[in-house]
Amino acid sequence: MAEKVTIATVARHARVSRQTVSNVLNAPHIVREETRRRVQEAITALGYRANQAARQMRTGRSRLFAVRIEPTRDGINGSVLDRFLHGLTETADAAGYRVMLYTATGDDDEIATFDDLLGAYDLDGFVLTGTDHGDPRTAWLAQRGVPFVTFGRPWDDPESHPWVDVDGAAGTAQATQRLLDAGHRRIAFIGWPEGSGVGDDRRAGWRTTMAAAGLDGAAPCRATEDGIAQGEREMRELLATDDPPTAVVCVSDSLALGALRAVRDTAVPVAVTGFDDTPVAAAIGLTSVSQPLAAAAGRCVELLTGLLDGQPTDPHVLLSPTLVLRHTA
Amino acid sequence: MAEKVTIATVARHARVSRQTVSNVLNAPHIVREETRRRVQEAITALGYRANQAARQMRTGRSRLFAVRIEPTRDGINGSVLDRFLHGLTETADAAGYRVMLYTATGDDDEIATFDDLLGAYDLDGFVLTGTDHGDPRTAWLAQRGVPFVTFGRPWDDPESHPWVDVDGAAGTAQATQRLLDAGHRRIAFIGWPEGSGVGDDRRAGWRTTMAAAGLDGAAPCRATEDGIAQGEREMRELLATDDPPTAVVCVSDSLALGALRAVRDTAVPVAVTGFDDTPVAAAIGLTSVSQPLAAAAGRCVELLTGLLDGQPTDPHVLLSPTLVLRHTA
Repeated sequence: MAEKVTIATVARHARVSRQTVSNVLNAPHIVREETRRRVQEAITALGYRANQAARQMRTGRSRLFAVRIEPTRDGINGSVLDRFLHGLTETADAAGYRVMLYTATGDDDEIATFDDLLGAYDLDGFVLTGTDHGDPRTAWLAQRGVPFVTFGRPWDDPESHPWVDVDGAAGTAQATQRLLDAGHRRIAFIGWPEGSGVGDDRRAGWRTTMAAAGLDGAAPCRATEDGIAQGEREMRELLATDDPPTAVVCVSDSLALGALRAVRDTAVPVAVTGFDDTPVAAAIGLTSVSQPLAAAAGRCVELLTGLLDGQPTDPHVLLSPTLVLRHTA
Repeated sequence: MAEKVTIATVARHARVSRQTVSNVLNAPHIVREETRRRVQEAITALGYRANQAARQMRTGRSRLFAVRIEPTRDGINGSVLDRFLHGLTETADAAGYRVMLYTATGDDDEIATFDDLLGAYDLDGFVLTGTDHGDPRTAWLAQRGVPFVTFGRPWDDPESHPWVDVDGAAGTAQATQRLLDAGHRRIAFIGWPEGSGVGDDRRAGWRTTMAAAGLDGAAPCRATEDGIAQGEREMRELLATDDPPTAVVCVSDSLALGALRAVRDTAVPVAVTGFDDTPVAAAIGLTSVSQPLAAAAGRCVELLTGLLDGQPTDPHVLLSPTLVLRHTA
């Protein structure tokens, strides 16, 4: 193994004091951003790792988060949470925390698991992925004073707990505006059934953009469960109408992929956009809205460690997605 | 929340004694397979969860594994280890274990992390994903008597430690045989540079199958780093030769996707197969070799918990992949 890298090595490399390096590791919020960045770069360049056991003794904390992992799914959209998990583990690691995984079959089961994990492992907190209307899990954690942050807004009351989210409506608005700018007027939307916070938010971005262009009457809207076959079916039905759309904004890459299959043989090309910029979108050239997943994971870690350090940062973080242009729109 | 499910509830449902349920949870190897399966089914059906803290006190173990997670990558092949991780967490959960994640930038860094984690978290063991020639990580763990299992064979000495792997050579042999049966004779291989255990194994399956058909002379073989662009370039070069192949077996879906781009406009259709049956392969109709990842994860957990219980099962598990036929071959 290479020579042992210590705090002193990092301090020398970053041209700061050892105390500053220690601050970056244990109380990053008190260090100026530019200095923090320089120290972080030195830490990365040198491959420095704080001794976890020593740190744990010092802080009296386990420095351990838990996050749920979903069952294996057939996979186009599942990659979003996987990418978030990679980002979360990397950022947590850099902040001296580890991530523990658990599975759960539903809200009740997840709450039972919280109880189990808190009893067994002395966890510092939870990162929940996804939230729903009337989420019983966040209420359970809040009642017990367990620190947590959600990746996803609490749809009923945005003030109720700390969260990080991506502005889905802004994403579909960008996609819709892009199609309007290209001259499209009949722009359809294929979404999920009403009632899911994420799906409704993405639909709203398309609807308000169409309304702002005075085109809400010309905007057919479909709702279906997620899936390639479902997207293909909805698109075929849209194409069979008297005044078929010339473009479609889809709530997910799976539905967009299905829509693409339906428009393969149309006389006039139909533009299609997806959502989540999955590896499949990249592979087939699908224009899609990309969530800043690494940034979202980083902000979740920042928020949670801030809560643990008694130095909470802005507790509601809404990040902007970007439209990745490819061949389909 | 629903009524609390206890060991007694599970016992009643599975028509066994409470002691048997307890044995399934704590010493599954002493329970007959048929009984174990019935109890597991009852556990799943009822959503039973053992109280982790109580169990930990009883067994004196933390019931915690650690597994490395790779940095986010651009994503076609990364999904393989993600799917393995989902399977691992699910199976570990069912066996009463949790999974902790860590990251590492290389072997030395990973060994330093082992040290760190063992000092801080009282881990029961590690699941290593991937092994290489002369792997220093397995030697480090073995020297210290830390229980571990690798998903991937130790290429230098298959007897050196417990492992689970998928027979890559059998996968490419199936793909090659399928192409031979369809009448192809000039079947190329696009692989990774020599020296990686996994890549060399997959190449060997193609080579021996061609040799068995008396066609090794007619088998052009290319090696490149992984990637879509690389696959496209290698395939274009193969097509530009005097006697171009009519089919190609690729070591990965990324390279296969690139090869597909290169053959899009050929006069005679060229058959292409990939490896790993990624979501991209499913989305674009690429014939690909599928690894039984959930089974591999399950066997890893079985092996590791067997070691911990002092009841090791067969320590070397080689699973067979299957060829998933789609449109490209």
